[in-house]
Amino acid sequence: MRVAYQGVRGAYSELAALRALGRKTTPVPCETFDEVFRAVTDGGADRGVIPIENSLAGSIHQNYDLLLDHSLHIVGEAHLKVEHVLMALPGSSMRSLKRIRSHPQALAQCDRFFRRHPRLVAEPYFDTAGAAASVAAEGARDVGAIASAYAARLYRLDVLKRQMENEPHNYTRFLVISRRPWVPKSGVRTKCSIVFRPHRNIVGILFRILGVFALRDINLLKIESRPDPREPFSYLFYVDFAGTPLEAHTARALEHLQEMTSFFRLLGAYPADVNELRVRR
Amino acid sequence: MRVAYQGVRGAYSELAALRALGRKTTPVPCETFDEVFRAVTDGGADRGVIPIENSLAGSIHQNYDLLLDHSLHIVGEAHLKVEHVLMALPGSSMRSLKRIRSHPQALAQCDRFFRRHPRLVAEPYFDTAGAAASVAAEGARDVGAIASAYAARLYRLDVLKRQMENEPHNYTRFLVISRRPWVPKSGVRTKCSIVFRPHRNIVGILFRILGVFALRDINLLKIESRPDPREPFSYLFYVDFAGTPLEAHTARALEHLQEMTSFFRLLGAYPADVNELRVRR
Repeated sequence: MRVAYQGVRGAYSELAALRALGRKTTPVPCETFDEVFRAVTDGGADRGVIPIENSLAGSIHQNYDLLLDHSLHIVGEAHLKVEHVLMALPGSSMRSLKRIRSHPQALAQCDRFFRRHPRLVAEPYFDTAGAAASVAAEGARDVGAIASAYAARLYRLDVLKRQMENEPHNYTRFLVISRRPWVPKSGVRTKCSIVFRPHRNIVGILFRILGVFALRDINLLKIESRPDPREPFSYLFYVDFAGTPLEAHTARALEHLQEMTSFFRLLGAYPADVNELRVRR
Repeated sequence: MRVAYQGVRGAYSELAALRALGRKTTPVPCETFDEVFRAVTDGGADRGVIPIENSLAGSIHQNYDLLLDHSLHIVGEAHLKVEHVLMALPGSSMRSLKRIRSHPQALAQCDRFFRRHPRLVAEPYFDTAGAAASVAAEGARDVGAIASAYAARLYRLDVLKRQMENEPHNYTRFLVISRRPWVPKSGVRTKCSIVFRPHRNIVGILFRILGVFALRDINLLKIESRPDPREPFSYLFYVDFAGTPLEAHTARALEHLQEMTSFFRLLGAYPADVNELRVRR
């Protein structure tokens, strides 16, 4: 199975792909999220793995937009704890380092470390795994990188320090996308992701929409609103709920919902990540 | 009035501060968002200006967290269209450029430009305005920067190309924070921002919570949920609504809401940005 993801080999997305789809996959690294969607659509990859929300940074709207631009299905999810480690060429030590390279966001997430070590220069790079690759390729003992332990292993770098980040509760939720939908199985805890635009100018429409779920005891797992980039002055809602459209009451809830929306799409029904609670702890 | 913001001189946040508070302000650039909150809390600045959501990237949860960590009040908001321009030393031209420097996110937002000009090397930097400052300081004619037109003016760089970004609908909403709350005035369209954690394990609690607003005809402007970083397995909700707690029915709605939440805070009541619709068009 070929799995497309944004980033170079060793990216956090590749690690999420391993967690979600196992080790018997062939990585298809892509430069942009757009390319990931095109690879899956065109058949260059069998699955795509994309980050959709991060506990510190929030939802990644760009990937919600790409889900709407393409006719792909969410078929799985994976929660990954983001754990930054400091790595350098074998034989290096904290003392030999002068510069540390990573994505600016990762550098900012580790800024307490840099304040404790004012001697070390933070050097911005395109991505975390790319920083690790560049350190391995350049062969300089005074440059380190901040990326995942997985990237260190992949590029044969030594881990000099773990838990570099200020904030330990940093996790990212990834979605697995595919050309064909997943077929719900009984006994498997299933989640659905939908997106809709409520009819405008109806006071309390959101209250009525939530009634569709609440009055059927369907449990909402996520609700988020955002100005619709395609339709000025109206809002898109992203909702995740427990259940599958194969259950009659859920199917009816989705029909009922569409009476109150000018746009609706089921992005996918997929097995809930059994590791979610462990990762979020 | 001294205004703290994250970034160097010329940052998009500084431009938002100008829009929200006028030209008679003294900029107080800070390295981190944390420093912005501390500057306002300690009296080193009179106001702070922080980004809270971006139309492409979503809500900036870190700043919601900092709002909860500090006892400051939201007293205003400003919507800013993000327009990236290419700039370089006076006398440079597109032909003389070899490298273009900016924050990786801004470089990614302009990747169509780089695909059309494969000769140009994208160079990651900590921030957009800092990239402009570094080009001005280094005095090299083969390096450009991508930042705001405001940063180009500030650092006396020539604008070589406007509208560099792929996606024209890119705007950021900023909040103005202060030690003292804004006092609602009649005739001024007012918004309130609140955050709360619903009581757990009550089916349909969110439906009932929205009823608090819907049954009083209070218009919700934003609703977003997010796993609570301080309380595993529970959710925080961010809600903006039209109105002020000085109106009796709104005050009663907030009292009613607190019957259903284990945590509640009014982050501020403030005049709605009159330019919002223009910026979002």
